Amino acid sequence: MNKLLIVGTVAFDAIETPFGKTDKILGGAGTYIGLSASFFNLKSAIVSVVGDDFPQEYLDMMQSKGIDISAIEVVKGGKTFFWAGKYHNDLNSRDTLVTELNTLADFQPKVPEHFKDADVVMLGNLHPLTQASVLDQMTVKPKLVVLDTMNFWMDCALPELLAVMKRIDVITINDEEARQLSGEYSLVKAAAKIHTMGPKYVVIKKGEHGALLFHDKDVFFAPALPLEEVFDPTGAGDTFAGGFIGHIAKTKDISFENMKTAIIVGSAMASFCVEKFGVQRLTEITRQDIDERMEAFVQLVNFDIALV
Amino acid sequence: MNKLLIVGTVAFDAIETPFGKTDKILGGAGTYIGLSASFFNLKSAIVSVVGDDFPQEYLDMMQSKGIDISAIEVVKGGKTFFWAGKYHNDLNSRDTLVTELNTLADFQPKVPEHFKDADVVMLGNLHPLTQASVLDQMTVKPKLVVLDTMNFWMDCALPELLAVMKRIDVITINDEEARQLSGEYSLVKAAAKIHTMGPKYVVIKKGEHGALLFHDKDVFFAPALPLEEVFDPTGAGDTFAGGFIGHIAKTKDISFENMKTAIIVGSAMASFCVEKFGVQRLTEITRQDIDERMEAFVQLVNFDIALV
Repeated sequence: MNKLLIVGTVAFDAIETPFGKTDKILGGAGTYIGLSASFFNLKSAIVSVVGDDFPQEYLDMMQSKGIDISAIEVVKGGKTFFWAGKYHNDLNSRDTLVTELNTLADFQPKVPEHFKDADVVMLGNLHPLTQASVLDQMTVKPKLVVLDTMNFWMDCALPELLAVMKRIDVITINDEEARQLSGEYSLVKAAAKIHTMGPKYVVIKKGEHGALLFHDKDVFFAPALPLEEVFDPTGAGDTFAGGFIGHIAKTKDISFENMKTAIIVGSAMASFCVEKFGVQRLTEITRQDIDERMEAFVQLVNFDIALV
Repeated sequence: MNKLLIVGTVAFDAIETPFGKTDKILGGAGTYIGLSASFFNLKSAIVSVVGDDFPQEYLDMMQSKGIDISAIEVVKGGKTFFWAGKYHNDLNSRDTLVTELNTLADFQPKVPEHFKDADVVMLGNLHPLTQASVLDQMTVKPKLVVLDTMNFWMDCALPELLAVMKRIDVITINDEEARQLSGEYSLVKAAAKIHTMGPKYVVIKKGEHGALLFHDKDVFFAPALPLEEVFDPTGAGDTFAGGFIGHIAKTKDISFENMKTAIIVGSAMASFCVEKFGVQRLTEITRQDIDERMEAFVQLVNFDIALV
């Protein structure tokens, strides 16, 4: 089986949306990425850190999905990273109510020996130095490295972010962050500028408005599936990344054509994620559900040009 | 040739964008719709009104594109409808600086005898009673009636709008207006509710984020083409409608499958419109340009599902 290495947070989230609120539930970018990628028959591992307040049942659940959890360090006497947020009525914006870094503050990722030759590496949203440290530990150059980041690191660790960006193949970033990073309003111009910073592929996530994939002069667009109700957008971007990277790791094909399919796979996975709180839908769905949703995407964008 | 009847404003616009500003130039929904539809080998007419300050050269230009201008009434001593607006830096919002109704205030549309049997009728954004009066004058029931409207009429002429909506097949409306008309935030739910008000087909325009076509349980999505620069968004929605209706009138096929293609044609036409001020690009492009842009849309959304 092909090997996928994921670094990212494993955390507690407390979420409030117009439809309800949760106590502390399982969250974190690494969790969403790992669960989303778990549908693609991979040997995958999550590198992360939690405190000993982290329930064993969460770790057991991830392991039951085939995820190698041996590199999720459990710090004795430590507390797990905790985020609480409240979404506004339109679900397009949110306020962060609590951010407790806890054990994440001193996180030193340790890549397991048997993953130092992983085919694909997914660097979830973390300090760029933490992301770089994972790449430093690889003994075989990965076929593909994907990096996710956010405006926070552009504000407070831009030189480090620019440095790690030179070492990656694909960056995933949202539209506002692409504009901030590039200084360009047009996403076409923004992607062109981000190309020059390192990544050959630029994925711009637009939430409910879909995602764009740029590679030189080529561009591909995947819509978000129009849903009756978005229940909780938390983790949708990471779930998208997990499906994207999962498909690529499974197929070991890093052509633009295959990345297009991977973008659709990511969009399909994200469309499940938002249907319930947290990771719940990702723990319920089957491969059959995913296939059906892929077909829905085909129907959504398929048109006949012969009549024109 | 198939007959397309268009009712809509023929007007002067003065536009300011971050890239420049114009004096009074040719504008109006009827103008954009007519020019956009003129590429599809139709017998088309615009029903409208202008003052005698309206330059003959504008009328000559429309006529040179094959548009029947005999139903554009020229009011002696009257002034032409004038709109002036200024776009904000992101081009997604604008302030209206001037609205002078002038001759439009007393507009009584008169459908020419030889267009009372038109195959397709496009009711551009006007008072719903004006739109209804056009339908009243048809002697043969059209194959398809498309209506465009806006929030202004929902605020001040809702009963009249709801009445004319019962007589049409397709409504084109933007996302915020769909939410206002339906009271639903989810566009899927909004479209379902608007279906119950009359139109079998609901087209929701999302500007730079593309357009959705709903019909019962079917949904189709067309992206907007990612452009390096949007120069002037004025008229993009009407140009979209013109391409949509132009393709349908040309093919005389009102199936959902063909409407999907028509949505892409509309999106392609709109992508030209925004490249220069006003109608300029619509007067420059060729059928070849349109075919090439249609191919760009195929490339933009085409993906291979076989690998999954």
